[in-house]
Amino acid sequence: MQELVLHEDPFSGNCYKIRLTASLVGANISTVSYNLAAGETRTARFCSTIDANGRVPVLQIGSETFLPESNAACYYLATGTSLVPEHDRLRHANMLRWMFFEQSFIEPTIGTLRFWYKRIGKHDMREEDIAMVPNRRKLAEDSLETMNIHLGGTKFFGGETPDLADVVLFAYTHVAEDAELDLNCWMNVKAWCQRLMDEKYCSPLHI
Amino acid sequence: MQELVLHEDPFSGNCYKIRLTASLVGANISTVSYNLAAGETRTARFCSTIDANGRVPVLQIGSETFLPESNAACYYLATGTSLVPEHDRLRHANMLRWMFFEQSFIEPTIGTLRFWYKRIGKHDMREEDIAMVPNRRKLAEDSLETMNIHLGGTKFFGGETPDLADVVLFAYTHVAEDAELDLNCWMNVKAWCQRLMDEKYCSPLHI
Repeated sequence: MQELVLHEDPFSGNCYKIRLTASLVGANISTVSYNLAAGETRTARFCSTIDANGRVPVLQIGSETFLPESNAACYYLATGTSLVPEHDRLRHANMLRWMFFEQSFIEPTIGTLRFWYKRIGKHDMREEDIAMVPNRRKLAEDSLETMNIHLGGTKFFGGETPDLADVVLFAYTHVAEDAELDLNCWMNVKAWCQRLMDEKYCSPLHI
Repeated sequence: MQELVLHEDPFSGNCYKIRLTASLVGANISTVSYNLAAGETRTARFCSTIDANGRVPVLQIGSETFLPESNAACYYLATGTSLVPEHDRLRHANMLRWMFFEQSFIEPTIGTLRFWYKRIGKHDMREEDIAMVPNRRKLAEDSLETMNIHLGGTKFFGGETPDLADVVLFAYTHVAEDAELDLNCWMNVKAWCQRLMDEKYCSPLHI
């Protein structure tokens, strides 16, 4: 495999999921850190060389290939491993279903609230962001409820063993407390996070 | 293949992309329509039988399998066709990169603005939604710019021929005018939409 460099912000759950996946599949990655809150990914140099969208994570593969979007980077790393059930068409589609769910309903809710509360700080939030909190919080609660219902009937998201959906959903879900969401309200979700840690699939993010 | 039923709202770009994909791969699907704006996907019956998250599209496969998330449904339908370059690890990751980009940056911006303007109506929008318009509009413009830069160097998102990323990005992008975004500001994007139509990969959504 070509040399892998993760352009990341160590605080970000989107970046953390790539490090988790790399660790699970035994891929060596080096990292370059940026501070998202300080705008370090919005510079002209970053946008012209790393990613025009001005965001991290970006997985650099060799010297010339840059892959943005955390879940695409995780998929790239886990291709050919048991984390990607590519020969079971329905289970594979189910895995993607929960990966898209994560980017649509978990990252913009738990991830954003956590960023505002823990990185920006409640007293320094912009008025326009404060106005969005109730909406994001309601959507976070509804999304955790959707996960909780699903996990009432299955050990991991796709069945008896974890796949990539579990890894990417773990990244923000296990730090929901940082977004002032109490996982005791969603006991199946809480038990699933603990299971992933107990069975050594995922370790908690320490910042 | 088992019988396929698309639970959808015909206005929705997320639903349209599934019909486009089914048409491209020659899959027969029947449809059941719901009115999202009227809350028809939020009923207890819908949530307990079709999708706990209360949303469409959901692709029903046979009598017991329900697959939410539009891009996962498109992937399921296109598995094994040239729209999913599964044997080229990097191109496949690039395809997923743009599919996740679509759900993170195009659907919540162009898709939501279009829903508010064309379905709810500007005069009937909630105060809290009106407050979000500037943010969504700025993100839509930035995202179209990111696409425009990429399309400056390639005919389709992954190269000389379309893949699933083109199909799912087309769904909301070609109706950007409904969200009061003028594609003449992003000429590479406009030319790419036209190319997909000229080469008979995608037809426009008529509502």
